[in-house]
Formats: sequence, structure tokens, C-alpha cells
Amino acid sequence: MNSRAAVLYGPKQPLRIEDIEVDDPKPGEVLLRLTASGICHSDLSPMQGLRPAPYPIVLGHEGAGMVEKVGSGVTSVKPGDHAIAAGIAPCGKCAYCVVGRPKVCQANLPKAVAGTLPDGTKRFHTKDGTEISHFLSRSSFTQYTVVAESGVVKVRPDAPLDKVALLSCGAAAGIGTVLNACRPEVGSTIAIFGCGGLGLSAVMAARIANCRMIIAVDVQDSKLQMAKELGATHIVNGKLTDAVQEVHKITGGGADNTLEFTGNVEVMSQTFDAAKAAGSVYLAGAPPAGARVSLDARALLLEKRVTGVVGGDTRSIIDIPRWVDLFMEGKLPIERLITHTFAFRDVNMAIELLEKGEGVRSILVID
Amino acid sequence: MNSRAAVLYGPKQPLRIEDIEVDDPKPGEVLLRLTASGICHSDLSPMQGLRPAPYPIVLGHEGAGMVEKVGSGVTSVKPGDHAIAAGIAPCGKCAYCVVGRPKVCQANLPKAVAGTLPDGTKRFHTKDGTEISHFLSRSSFTQYTVVAESGVVKVRPDAPLDKVALLSCGAAAGIGTVLNACRPEVGSTIAIFGCGGLGLSAVMAARIANCRMIIAVDVQDSKLQMAKELGATHIVNGKLTDAVQEVHKITGGGADNTLEFTGNVEVMSQTFDAAKAAGSVYLAGAPPAGARVSLDARALLLEKRVTGVVGGDTRSIIDIPRWVDLFMEGKLPIERLITHTFAFRDVNMAIELLEKGEGVRSILVID
Repeated sequence: MNSRAAVLYGPKQPLRIEDIEVDDPKPGEVLLRLTASGICHSDLSPMQGLRPAPYPIVLGHEGAGMVEKVGSGVTSVKPGDHAIAAGIAPCGKCAYCVVGRPKVCQANLPKAVAGTLPDGTKRFHTKDGTEISHFLSRSSFTQYTVVAESGVVKVRPDAPLDKVALLSCGAAAGIGTVLNACRPEVGSTIAIFGCGGLGLSAVMAARIANCRMIIAVDVQDSKLQMAKELGATHIVNGKLTDAVQEVHKITGGGADNTLEFTGNVEVMSQTFDAAKAAGSVYLAGAPPAGARVSLDARALLLEKRVTGVVGGDTRSIIDIPRWVDLFMEGKLPIERLITHTFAFRDVNMAIELLEKGEGVRSILVID
Repeated sequence: MNSRAAVLYGPKQPLRIEDIEVDDPKPGEVLLRLTASGICHSDLSPMQGLRPAPYPIVLGHEGAGMVEKVGSGVTSVKPGDHAIAAGIAPCGKCAYCVVGRPKVCQANLPKAVAGTLPDGTKRFHTKDGTEISHFLSRSSFTQYTVVAESGVVKVRPDAPLDKVALLSCGAAAGIGTVLNACRPEVGSTIAIFGCGGLGLSAVMAARIANCRMIIAVDVQDSKLQMAKELGATHIVNGKLTDAVQEVHKITGGGADNTLEFTGNVEVMSQTFDAAKAAGSVYLAGAPPAGARVSLDARALLLEKRVTGVVGGDTRSIIDIPRWVDLFMEGKLPIERLITHTFAFRDVNMAIELLEKGEGVRSILVID
């Protein structure tokens, strides 16, 4: 089947928009016709060459659309269903999946990194037959994409796909870090370091979790302002003040929970320092390869706990429909994160904006 | 009351054995006549000057003996009871105590560090009236000591005091890190870095918790041999082999739980690396002030969890009687840790042995 797609042929190149061939779904797979895709920092790494990828590759991993066709054995969706592609399509069988940790599925994570679907093969190729890789098992900068069933989540038909697409990755990572990983006590204090799409989603989640103090930390006033509008009770500009001291001052000794969404190891150390004795620290930003985070070893003896979180520990088929409902009720206003919307042909402009750090989130409208 | 005690007058000096005055217990306090004391690494820091202490001070914090006298209001022990002095006598009222984290009691921890009892005053003084500090709110290198009631645990009268004294600190820290903090699943794998008194106690605890693989890591063959006798299923000499690789090889991808008992930040990093994806890491060694532990930031994204543990999260009045029972049944053979016994007058010899790193644990017999 023909599909207009944005293909990356190598690092430090723009995406090339062209027609590719998309194969039919194999057993256990789903063909989606996408109508929208979010654009997320993880899309940048293969473009910048920071995380080498199996080129050529179709990037994008926050896709939403309609089910076009299903392979044999697929039971959770049928043609016509609205759906988003989320997660790396975990195997459901490994020692990680069976204890509810699909985000670190050791069977399919290597396939996602290698650019194939879970069965180890690819469904994309150029018109002259060259194979094209999948990104994170669910490329979305394309009209059509094939995803294994466990990477597809049905969503209610009245939910706007160009908004809930954000729950494929970024918004889910922020919300899930609060609601799944941290699970703050009602009335507790929380400090959130980094107010991009993930951190702002975390602020929203902390608000519906009824944290008593929600302290947002960033270096951009515009993002802090947005954090305040979304529920932060306190904002701290880390460029103008010592954020750790400030969190200790506001909370009277450190926050019960501190969360990090920057991928910057200096900020990770600060996030650790901002937690009180016996406090819980969640590091959810994606650091560059080889980065090491340095923690005050004696402060660890105050029984602090540090947990790495990926993708908000999201159990897609459980969490995403819940969060879609909350969004539809106005309780998780993820649409507020969308500062820019681009037509599919302008995908490179959207990428450029992301590289500049302008705005919060962009949505690509695919037609 | 007169008491023979070993007093430290300043860093890098031997303990001076002399007669001191011990005041009567105030309301809520207990006067103990000690018959035995363990000697633990924490006793060394004030002697070496690594952790400055309020000199003069009576060291020792693993004391066991009989209740001699109680202040008004004391209800949990009476004269004649056998007891050990354990923990820093938590206040029971602060935000940490009320959620079951007495080890980080923020009311009394500063008092323990300052060398006083919880009420901020001292019960020890020299014959000429100079005040002498308490160590960790429960000095034990003395015939008589005063401890606040919450720092005293009654033990069954048939338990040998010169063995269960170890449950005041070292053995409890090892056992509690396994049974309270880590709580390994039956049949899971555990790697224990550092096989001194704490690590070997952790090995015993991992055995009664029925871990499937118990991997002991140290650099001394004699300690590894003892670990094997106490229940380790595998031993790894970190001087001869890459311990992290070895743990990954033995477990097929990393241990479910990894524990550290060295206070060495290099070993802490190794302990982190030895855990599998989504594995749990417990850092329980006491690092020097200012030390920082460096963790592979991307490996954190595999959802590893790192928890600092102090004193094995021991809730003294709950845990110690349990562990005494298990010891009496032969299931926690902490007596095996005791490689040396010294008369009280030879306390400096015992300290010297500890500094040399010889043996595992020494017991001081006080008469």
C-alpha cells in the first residue's frame, strides 16, 4: 500500500517526504491510518546522531488514527476503531512483562531499538525495494503504519485524535511518572524539575492527585507561567535562584517527592538534593549515552529512594483509556501543551522549532 | 554512680579507661548495667577524626545488659530485665517516626550526633565534673549507661547477652536491609557486596528469606568462605574477577536485588550495575562525608530503583525480639560473626584489630 512518509536517510539530514510502500499487517499486527502525530524530543536523537538509528527510518512515535486493517488473531481492535500507537509493543510473556513492567520488556525492547517490529522484520520499503526501519516499533510520520497489537490502544471515538496523540508518549510519561511510579499521597508535597511537555503533564497529574504543594522548577519563565496555570502552587526559576534551597525553604526541609524530566545529570543531582529525608526521587528524563548521575552518598543514608522511570511506567491498555476519559472531563488538559500545529509537509519546520526549544509541543496533522 | 568507662578525649588518641560518674535516669530514661558490647566500624570514625565528635565521649553503641533502674513513666522495662540498647531513641512523634521511619527521626538524630540524650543533656561526667558525651544516644564502653526508653529493647532472659549485643547495630543493619528494606521475593536472586559483619548478616537473612541465589562479593577469601558457610550459593572475589560481569553471568542478566555494605562509592556503583533491569538496589554502607556515588544515568532508565538504608530500617522493639527468637532457634547464627572476644580493659586492642580489618566482629566482655 502506498503511504506518504517522512524518511530519515542519515544523521544531520532533513526528513525527506516521499511515497513509500507499507506491507499488509502480519498475524497479530494492525495497520493504522494516522491522522495526527505528536513530535517529541526522542525523535531528535536519531536526527542529531546522538542515538544512532538503523537508517533509513520513518521517525515519529506519537501517532493517532483509525484502524484500517488487522492481521489474523487480532482481537482488541477492529477496522474503523480509533486508536493510538503507544509503547514498544511488549511481548506479554517475558519476566518483565509478567510482573507488570512492560516498559522494560527484554524481548521486544531490542527489536524496537533495532528498527523492526517485534517479529524482527520490517513492513516499510522504498519504491525500489530498500527496507525502511520502524522507530520504537511504531513510526508515525507516515499516513499508514503497522504496529503489533500490544502497541495499539483503542480510544473512544469522540476523543480528538490530534490531542490524545500526546498520550502515546510525552504526556503519558509525565502523567504516569506521577500516577504510576510516584503515587504521591494526597496532601503531600512534590517538586517537578523541568517544565517541558513531560513536566507540565506531571504538574497536571500532581494536581488531580491533590498534592498540597506542587513546585515547578525550570529556567524559562514562559514554561513556569504555564506550570502555574496548570496547577503549580509555586514556581522556581533555577537560573535566578538556587532551586534546591528554594524547594527546601518552601517545603520546610525538602519535598516528599521530587521528579526530574530534563535528562540533564546536573538537574538529576538537584532533584535528589531537593527531596527530604526518606523522600522519593523519580528520574524520568532521558540522559545522553554514557552520562552518569552523581548523588550525595551520605544523603542516601537518610533513606532517600531514587527510581528511574521510563515512559511513566504506562501500562498502555489500562492507563491510556483512563487518561483519555480524564482529558475529556477537562481534568487532564493536555491540549494546553500544544503550542503549535503543522501540516505534514512542514514536518521539518516542526523539528526545527523543537531543536530551538521554542513552544512546548507540536502536533502534525496528517492527511 | 561510679562506672568504669573507656573515654575518648580527642581524635587519634587511645581510649582512656577510667572511673566516671553516671547520673540517675531522668523521667523516661533507663539505667543499664552492661555486661557486653559489640565493637563496630561506626566506633572508629570519632577516633580517626573522620566524623568529629563532641569530645570527651564514651564510645560503643552495641551494648547489652540488665536494667538497673528506671526513671518515672518508664513502662516497657523494669529493673532486672535483660535488655539491649539499640537505635538513637527515636521521639515517636515527628513526621518520620509516625510513618514508621524511626531511623531518620529528625527530632532526636541531631541530639544523637551532638552527644546528648534526647532531652539535650548528658548523664556522664568526669570525677572533677566535666561533662562527657554520649555516643549515638547509647554509649556502651562503660559499666553503666543511661538511655531513653525508646532506645532500650527488652530481650528474653535465656538469650546470651554477649551474642545478641550484635543486634544493637551491625547484625541488625545487615538483617534489616534484607528483611525490612529489600524484602526479596522467595526464590529471587540477591547479590551482597561486602562481607563484613553487616554483609554476612545479610547473607543469613537472605538464606532464611529463601532467596534462590545468594551471591556474596568481597575481596577477602576468608570472608567469602564464611559467607559460603552461612548460606551464600555463589562467592565472587572482586579482586580476581569483574564482580559485575560475574553477577550478570551467574544470574543471566543481573540480580533481582543487590545490596551494598562497604561505604565505598566505587562498590556502590558496581552494586547498581549488578542489578537487572527494574531491579532493586540497596546502599547500606556508611560513606565518608562528602562522598558522591556515580550511577549510569541511562541504566536508571531501565527502571532500576536505588534506596539508601540506615541501620536496616530496624524498628527496634518489633524486629529485635523477632531476630533474637530466630537466633535462639539457630536460624540466624549471628554468633558465627564473633571472631574475637576481649576483656573490657583490652578495648584498645579490639579497636586496633578492627582498624586492621582482621576478623569479623569483636565482643567486649564488661564486668
